[in-house]
Amino acid sequence: MRSKRGKSNQQDSRGELSLIDQIRHRAAKASKGALRLGIGDDCALLRLKPGEDLAVTTDLSIAGRHFRLDWHTPEAIGHRTLARGLSDLAAMGARPVAAFLSLGLPRELTVSARRGRSWSDRFFDGFLALANACRTPLAGGDLSESPVVVADIVLIGAVPHGRALLRSGALPGDLLYVTGTLGGAATGLLKLGELAAAKSPLPPSILNKNTASLAPHLYPQPRIPQGLWLRRKSVATAAIDLSDGLSTDLAHLCAESGVAAEVKVDALPLHSAATLDQALNGGEDYELLFTATPSARLPQKISGVPITRIGRILTARRGRPPVVLLNATGPQPLEPRGWQHFSCANPLEQSS
Amino acid sequence: MRSKRGKSNQQDSRGELSLIDQIRHRAAKASKGALRLGIGDDCALLRLKPGEDLAVTTDLSIAGRHFRLDWHTPEAIGHRTLARGLSDLAAMGARPVAAFLSLGLPRELTVSARRGRSWSDRFFDGFLALANACRTPLAGGDLSESPVVVADIVLIGAVPHGRALLRSGALPGDLLYVTGTLGGAATGLLKLGELAAAKSPLPPSILNKNTASLAPHLYPQPRIPQGLWLRRKSVATAAIDLSDGLSTDLAHLCAESGVAAEVKVDALPLHSAATLDQALNGGEDYELLFTATPSARLPQKISGVPITRIGRILTARRGRPPVVLLNATGPQPLEPRGWQHFSCANPLEQSS
Repeated sequence: MRSKRGKSNQQDSRGELSLIDQIRHRAAKASKGALRLGIGDDCALLRLKPGEDLAVTTDLSIAGRHFRLDWHTPEAIGHRTLARGLSDLAAMGARPVAAFLSLGLPRELTVSARRGRSWSDRFFDGFLALANACRTPLAGGDLSESPVVVADIVLIGAVPHGRALLRSGALPGDLLYVTGTLGGAATGLLKLGELAAAKSPLPPSILNKNTASLAPHLYPQPRIPQGLWLRRKSVATAAIDLSDGLSTDLAHLCAESGVAAEVKVDALPLHSAATLDQALNGGEDYELLFTATPSARLPQKISGVPITRIGRILTARRGRPPVVLLNATGPQPLEPRGWQHFSCANPLEQSS
Repeated sequence: MRSKRGKSNQQDSRGELSLIDQIRHRAAKASKGALRLGIGDDCALLRLKPGEDLAVTTDLSIAGRHFRLDWHTPEAIGHRTLARGLSDLAAMGARPVAAFLSLGLPRELTVSARRGRSWSDRFFDGFLALANACRTPLAGGDLSESPVVVADIVLIGAVPHGRALLRSGALPGDLLYVTGTLGGAATGLLKLGELAAAKSPLPPSILNKNTASLAPHLYPQPRIPQGLWLRRKSVATAAIDLSDGLSTDLAHLCAESGVAAEVKVDALPLHSAATLDQALNGGEDYELLFTATPSARLPQKISGVPITRIGRILTARRGRPPVVLLNATGPQPLEPRGWQHFSCANPLEQSS
């Protein structure tokens, strides 16, 4: 969050630099950890521990694609922006070191409403609450005026040399596990859309993070402690986070590992309100999907989150689908049907 | 550049995953250096040398703010996107380790025109040409459909522990230097606007990178070798890159160092076509502004780029402007008047 292309200090109306100053002030209160130099220079400076590799991920969120300004509160958008990046670190078994945020905003969203908090203030409320909970300092980024809200989150993590959990490590015979429950985010998104269709604008009480049915969608919890546990115990052979949906993400894991997989329908830990389709294809649950050898002993829970065995890894064979679903009527191919860009319909797409 | 939220492999029309596959293929040809794991997993993995700090910067570029689709070729936009980030590393004296790119594009820009190259293909032509020239592998990022073109560039660099060039190191008595010439980018932008007003659309020949008057704007050269030289020789006490314009960036350097400065008008290395105002306030020259002790011996050129002494650092005093300009009529305050977001008029702003 540099003052490049920033406005001069002497201006009164809220501009980029005053917004940067606010963020710098708020970010400075958080724990620093590996951060040697934060907001205010050309680059931030970080120092890892000796023997650590660097894990880096970026995730771009765009209004009308990843969230809707008329559905999502600024706090939820801030939380979800950061959660997407943290979830990638969790999937590698990396500890978060620092976050960087590039934010493009229409000018009016930086201006305070009558009660004194602008949209951007509230975005950072949600963002920084999760950053503090995950001990991840906001170390920099960029700000720009933009016709649409865009937020690109960059996460820097650290993992001991050669110990990262990869998508490519699964072997035939490994067992397949998932954290938490599946389909809750899709259920919450559907519910949010129904509420939005019924009432416009949505009353804040409905969007409160305590609303249980919406929470998995609005406030997903990145599985950082679970990823760290799996890596430290050397339990997982491969891992990926469930951002696109089990059907798509399992296909990615199989492709990168050069294996196939079977999933037992009866074993899937469906969220209480979710359908099978939502659990398989809904996406954005941000749970971890991972593999382990048959001899590995997995606990029932890791840091309070249930661990469920849902299938196993097979040898990839020509002419056989890479992923099959086992149900009462026998095996059937599981096609990747998660939410996909540049292709199928997006439930968040705003008609204009 | 992960396949998260990607389309499935079996689709024929050009989608996110096929675009990712292309980029992965093209990026894989480049030198790897510190890159342990590139495009294709939840995070990229990098390994620095022992004793190195990590330098991280992000820069957000948005159509209509930082470039215009009807003025700039895709190749130039790709080059400029990466150059902005590399210039920040140069200012810290850091060596580039890896780049990450989050790119939001309208769907039609990913589709090939009759001659077989889409807008995004040509964007990556420009981006990867500079990446290869600066030995900076594209290690990951994100792709999304977007109503406007947005490109967030993340640069990871490395610098020996505690040796980075900071904005905050200047002391009273230090001398003030600049690389290259000033105002060339502003001159080029003005010329580009005039050409665009006269002819629409601009013929490709006009936008060719060899057009001397446009090159400083369309193809700025990040001063990586010069930044590395200054850091390795322990010559510079402070440094910043000229992205906003000398008046604004010198004010930043003075503010971070807690000093004042004076600049001699006669000493400024103006670009041959530039006015004094363009040299002081034009921005986007991406030259380095740095300070050194009076005893430091600076060469006339570093890696072929001229070094010019333009002033000196003074003690900051209450009631005295932080930066003064010395001309024939005596000293006058130099206000920061670089191009500023959320505030003054932007020459690239598209009327809609």
